[in-house]
Amino acid sequence: MRHVISVTVENKPGVLAHISSLFAARGYSIDSLAVGETEDPAISRMTIVTRGDDQIIEQIIKQLRKLISTLKVNDLSKVDFIERDLVLIQVNAPPGKRGEIIEIVNVFRGKIVDVGQKNLVVELSGQGNKVEAFIDLLRTYGIKEMARTGSIAMTRGAK
Amino acid sequence: MRHVISVTVENKPGVLAHISSLFAARGYSIDSLAVGETEDPAISRMTIVTRGDDQIIEQIIKQLRKLISTLKVNDLSKVDFIERDLVLIQVNAPPGKRGEIIEIVNVFRGKIVDVGQKNLVVELSGQGNKVEAFIDLLRTYGIKEMARTGSIAMTRGAK
Repeated sequence: MRHVISVTVENKPGVLAHISSLFAARGYSIDSLAVGETEDPAISRMTIVTRGDDQIIEQIIKQLRKLISTLKVNDLSKVDFIERDLVLIQVNAPPGKRGEIIEIVNVFRGKIVDVGQKNLVVELSGQGNKVEAFIDLLRTYGIKEMARTGSIAMTRGAK
Repeated sequence: MRHVISVTVENKPGVLAHISSLFAARGYSIDSLAVGETEDPAISRMTIVTRGDDQIIEQIIKQLRKLISTLKVNDLSKVDFIERDLVLIQVNAPPGKRGEIIEIVNVFRGKIVDVGQKNLVVELSGQGNKVEAFIDLLRTYGIKEMARTGSIAMTRGAK
């Protein structure tokens, strides 16, 4: 099963290495990981997406909770949550195809970030499946380069 | 100096742990790190933002290049590049303040993702300083929760 795990940690050297080695020790691949600052510069928040046996993920979460630098661990897969992802794509765009590509970007409410002689750089944020559909459409034109943040996630607000 | 490093790696367990430990071994804090999939599911791309002495960063980059799982390392700080970041913010929004907050979100071309009784969840992508300005404005209403992807980056297209 796919798991989206949110981990709040102290922003110190070594914390990321420690956490990622907990997954590696079990041979677990991390599909995506995003670490960014929070309101408090001393605290970082990680969103980890992984796939695997529920029991083993449960063990990893228990170990994460035991780390001194860990403040909070949440398996969002068990609750109703919001998930967003950001992608930058450099796509092949010869003059005759440029209009078509711009149309696709507009339909998805993406943004054109850079225009070159033969290519465009486009930006899109949204839910994973929307981002996937966008990538699939651009693939037919030829993707030259792509960078994706991986998911960030949050419990839905109303409690 | 601030460095934005893009690393393309094989998508295998342990690669992230290995790379993050190279930074930790020198006591270097990672400001943000985003790892996501690329066009090829066997390959991941990491964007690492760190601050520090140029010579030491240069040493870390050399070591990154020596790792078997590393395919490509690029210090984008030395070229003209595009950088984007995504944030999800749950902000305090009592009925009397909701209109004001929605106006701010519209000015920044952000999106309202979720509406609760007393709060809103908003999404914004853009350059780091734009995201910072947005966070600063929302801080006055009270930020309840925040998740940020960290930067992804790409060399500007026209060569």
